[in-house]
Amino acid sequence: MTETESTGRRHTRDDVARTALRILDDHGLPDLTMRRLAAALDVQPSALYWHFPNKQTLLAELADRIVSHGRPVATATASTATASTATASTATAPTDWMHAVRSEAATLRDALLAYRDGAEVVSSTFALGLGSTAAVDRLASAVALGGFDDHTSGRAATALLHFILGHVSHEQQRMQYDSFGVLADGVTASSIDEDDPAAAFRFGVDLLVGGLEFSRSRR
Amino acid sequence: MTETESTGRRHTRDDVARTALRILDDHGLPDLTMRRLAAALDVQPSALYWHFPNKQTLLAELADRIVSHGRPVATATASTATASTATASTATAPTDWMHAVRSEAATLRDALLAYRDGAEVVSSTFALGLGSTAAVDRLASAVALGGFDDHTSGRAATALLHFILGHVSHEQQRMQYDSFGVLADGVTASSIDEDDPAAAFRFGVDLLVGGLEFSRSRR
Repeated sequence: MTETESTGRRHTRDDVARTALRILDDHGLPDLTMRRLAAALDVQPSALYWHFPNKQTLLAELADRIVSHGRPVATATASTATASTATASTATAPTDWMHAVRSEAATLRDALLAYRDGAEVVSSTFALGLGSTAAVDRLASAVALGGFDDHTSGRAATALLHFILGHVSHEQQRMQYDSFGVLADGVTASSIDEDDPAAAFRFGVDLLVGGLEFSRSRR
Repeated sequence: MTETESTGRRHTRDDVARTALRILDDHGLPDLTMRRLAAALDVQPSALYWHFPNKQTLLAELADRIVSHGRPVATATASTATASTATASTATAPTDWMHAVRSEAATLRDALLAYRDGAEVVSSTFALGLGSTAAVDRLASAVALGGFDDHTSGRAATALLHFILGHVSHEQQRMQYDSFGVLADGVTASSIDEDDPAAAFRFGVDLLVGGLEFSRSRR
């Protein structure tokens, strides 16, 4: 038992969230219950509600932490500032904004993959309208670097997020089924790049990015 | 109790699947248990395993039925045949294949939305490598009308499917949360076209389709 756990009720919100993230990563979303979390912290379940009024609020906090995985706060702020500045002035070269979108998408995929059931936690929080809008904001800022208006950038960011969550959710479900040994025989014979999900992911992001460039050429 | 239900153990595989689909639609995936299904059919749970060796196999059958919703078998076959013929000869005009992809995507979205938790049933079956490949095959056939090679058509179809499942899963989660009254306040203030999910869906599909045309112009 660590020193933090032995302090009983004297846990900070951060302690609770970090322990919840560990349970999620070790056991998966279905096993992340308030009861189990309380037991891991050596407190009564009721003590958790001081920090998180319900499980949805806890999951929203976890979603924010997952989405920010691998991003120091300072870097994230600097990145947003750069994007806004560029939008306010002139559009950058096509390859620059495309690279920015690909980079944001790849970073988000890595962050979701860093935690078991990461995509599911983030997508349910997104559907509830809880949690920060950091993921979609970063994608929108990257698209806006291409000189697209706010409405188009926002819609494109949302489309990117749906694709990213759909793709990574598939990857994580498949990893889980594989670990359970329940995958169908010959599953790699499908038309999917199962052997290289990162390449399949980049292909999809490139289609969405190319579609934005294509829409510009049609205006 | 209907005549079918009163016949006890004498249910066909189709009876079992249709009853399961009704329970799914009425109560949602978490409440679709083999026990509940057996009770609805007035049989012992063990009697179900004669038709479906496990729940995954049952869900795969439901996924196939959901994906085929609103498509007579004859029409689906004719559509595939048309696509293959066109691929074997010359590519159709750009607007034709784009229209075909948009149409397949919209039909699939409608089919998923026709059943509660439809996107979740189809995505978990897809991740397991079970069920038919009808959804991805139809999308790939539509893309192939544009003269793209099989590899590109298959990858694009998979990317489309991830986007479609991600988008509709979001829509269905949101509908469910809304019915529970647990949506966060001011959720429509996000950057998403929550008021018109069909338009947001078309925008995403158009980006993926446009990206294919854009990739052709770069070759």
